[in-house]
Amino acid sequence: MDRVAIIGASMTQFGQRDAWIRELLAEAGQAALADADVSPDEIEHLYVSNMASGEFEGQTGVPNALAHDLAAMPAYTARIDQTSSSGGAGVYAAWQSVASGASDMTMLVGGEKMTHRSTAEATDVIASLTHPVEYKHGVTLPSFAGLTARLYLDTYDAPRESLGKVAVKNHKNGVDNPHAQFRKEVDLDTVLDSPVVADPLRLYDFCPITDGSAALVFCPESVAREYTDDYAVISGIGGATDTHVVHERADPTTMGGVVNSSEIAYEMADLEPDDIEVAELHDMFTILEFLQSEDLGFFEKGEGWKAVDEGVTDRDGDLPINTSGGLKSKGHPLGASGVAQVYEIYKQLIGDAGERQVDADVGLACNVGGFGNCVTTTIMESR
Amino acid sequence: MDRVAIIGASMTQFGQRDAWIRELLAEAGQAALADADVSPDEIEHLYVSNMASGEFEGQTGVPNALAHDLAAMPAYTARIDQTSSSGGAGVYAAWQSVASGASDMTMLVGGEKMTHRSTAEATDVIASLTHPVEYKHGVTLPSFAGLTARLYLDTYDAPRESLGKVAVKNHKNGVDNPHAQFRKEVDLDTVLDSPVVADPLRLYDFCPITDGSAALVFCPESVAREYTDDYAVISGIGGATDTHVVHERADPTTMGGVVNSSEIAYEMADLEPDDIEVAELHDMFTILEFLQSEDLGFFEKGEGWKAVDEGVTDRDGDLPINTSGGLKSKGHPLGASGVAQVYEIYKQLIGDAGERQVDADVGLACNVGGFGNCVTTTIMESR
Repeated sequence: MDRVAIIGASMTQFGQRDAWIRELLAEAGQAALADADVSPDEIEHLYVSNMASGEFEGQTGVPNALAHDLAAMPAYTARIDQTSSSGGAGVYAAWQSVASGASDMTMLVGGEKMTHRSTAEATDVIASLTHPVEYKHGVTLPSFAGLTARLYLDTYDAPRESLGKVAVKNHKNGVDNPHAQFRKEVDLDTVLDSPVVADPLRLYDFCPITDGSAALVFCPESVAREYTDDYAVISGIGGATDTHVVHERADPTTMGGVVNSSEIAYEMADLEPDDIEVAELHDMFTILEFLQSEDLGFFEKGEGWKAVDEGVTDRDGDLPINTSGGLKSKGHPLGASGVAQVYEIYKQLIGDAGERQVDADVGLACNVGGFGNCVTTTIMESR
Repeated sequence: MDRVAIIGASMTQFGQRDAWIRELLAEAGQAALADADVSPDEIEHLYVSNMASGEFEGQTGVPNALAHDLAAMPAYTARIDQTSSSGGAGVYAAWQSVASGASDMTMLVGGEKMTHRSTAEATDVIASLTHPVEYKHGVTLPSFAGLTARLYLDTYDAPRESLGKVAVKNHKNGVDNPHAQFRKEVDLDTVLDSPVVADPLRLYDFCPITDGSAALVFCPESVAREYTDDYAVISGIGGATDTHVVHERADPTTMGGVVNSSEIAYEMADLEPDDIEVAELHDMFTILEFLQSEDLGFFEKGEGWKAVDEGVTDRDGDLPINTSGGLKSKGHPLGASGVAQVYEIYKQLIGDAGERQVDADVGLACNVGGFGNCVTTTIMESR
């Protein structure tokens, strides 16, 4: 079967943006069309990854607005929502649209506009994805992260400093990402001395609230060859859920959705964890980078922190993780994040990552919704 | 290629329900599993069609809640939103998941919980799909319908009574649908004397605000044969958009999304409009049934009203339309409606429509989002 290729990509400046959701989506969409050298009337399917434009902005129907703004009508459109993994779910939807033969040219644009709302309001919208009983008890995603971090440090005898080193690494990478929200290095003391948010996690263990958008153009590999020599292919992709009620998980330091989605992706790609040469993980909280790096099979359970400590996941390490700066420094506009992860891997695989470039022909993106409630894992290869 | 089959279906009671969205989704999901004789752990992909659980109820992440409630974990889940055509978009997503080879057993559950909000509040949530400028001018979907109805009657010299006859026909059909919100006949005088909502349209020209859910189980035809002799196949499916700004359309009595989506579906199915033997159209407003019946090619432009007038679309006519009672009498729980349309066609094609049964081997469902902003057309055949 013809593999699904990515022939163009874009991302907007992430951060606090003076633009509404439909403007952000159109900005990334237009840039991706230009990057792919595809005209709007060639687009057959147009997907939008977005969690909550209705809740944040009172605007729904954004896929239609985008089709209109890009002059892509009558392209079919739909919105794909999987909370904070809406972007990964959009990648899966776009992949399916091409692999099923429904579309020979699919665009995915992921975006979210959040910073016009207070951090408390934005956190509350995100927390609406939790089980009603957990929500009523005031559990938010940061609180899950704090509880899980404490359990991880205790179970695997990891030092508190190891979490801080994730923030230091990803901020360092973000300096070289022109689209990142924060382009500044932080030192370990700054992280460790920042205000407590959910003990033991502190301010610098968390990603920010962000506006932004990212876009990708997909087509069959046979079509891709007509457009460019610089494309990448999706060789494996899978998605999986874990319990909606987080406290029902047998071991909260294991993310079942990561384990199960990656098994599907590895099998489809006929690859092993050892074959991955660069990865973007969902570091919404520093602790999540440890969990995913283990549950994806990169490191033994309880050893992810050592890999960060030893520099294995640095940009010049054996397995660079979050060369983009990750959600931590790049920012986390919910619906855009999973799309921006694939943007980074795509740029790395076609050799267009600038200062961030590493030597890699196989990459992986892991996008986590909720607190691991649903996960999409995408494996990509250079052509 | 293996065609995509539907091997089981369900719908809940539509109407005013004392249940939240996750309960409604679980009710339909469990019933569809039972109908298909499929166990939850066989489900590989689980899609939820829903427009606005966040806005209506403050609950997001409903696909994960459903995976949990059905014990379908670790099935991959995502929410598909295309406003009032979320159900049709869900059918397309489910079809793609099977046709692409990503899933050999996909469940789609569409649902919405609306009646706990006032009609004004619900109408406002729906109106958030319009262009911001139209929204700020107070344009809601009912007002578009009134303007379009007036234009249609004037352009095609159709009598006001013809619109009323759509309501009379669909209410009559709904009497025999045990799941319909309204199971009562209405006479033409009642429709024509009901309160004006958006001149010339009156109360009985509009579908109600509704709670409800519907579900379908999809798999490759080769797998379907292992489960049942009573399945139907999707032989054609397509989606298309029209302008986000309704007033930019050259001819508002033509729904471009219907024309373009059905062309894709007819071509895939290798069928013509004349081959369709039963259809479910999106009669959110009576006028929409005329427009769709013409734009799908069933009748010449401007002649759809005559077909209703002459009884062609009655249950015992040449082309029965909305045997389920349509959105008009069955109700319109946004995310559920497109799923319930396919439920009805499925039941007709496998000969399980009870009092509503007509003689048909080929059926079509047309699900309209916004005011024709995005449309999905699905053609199904008996095995």
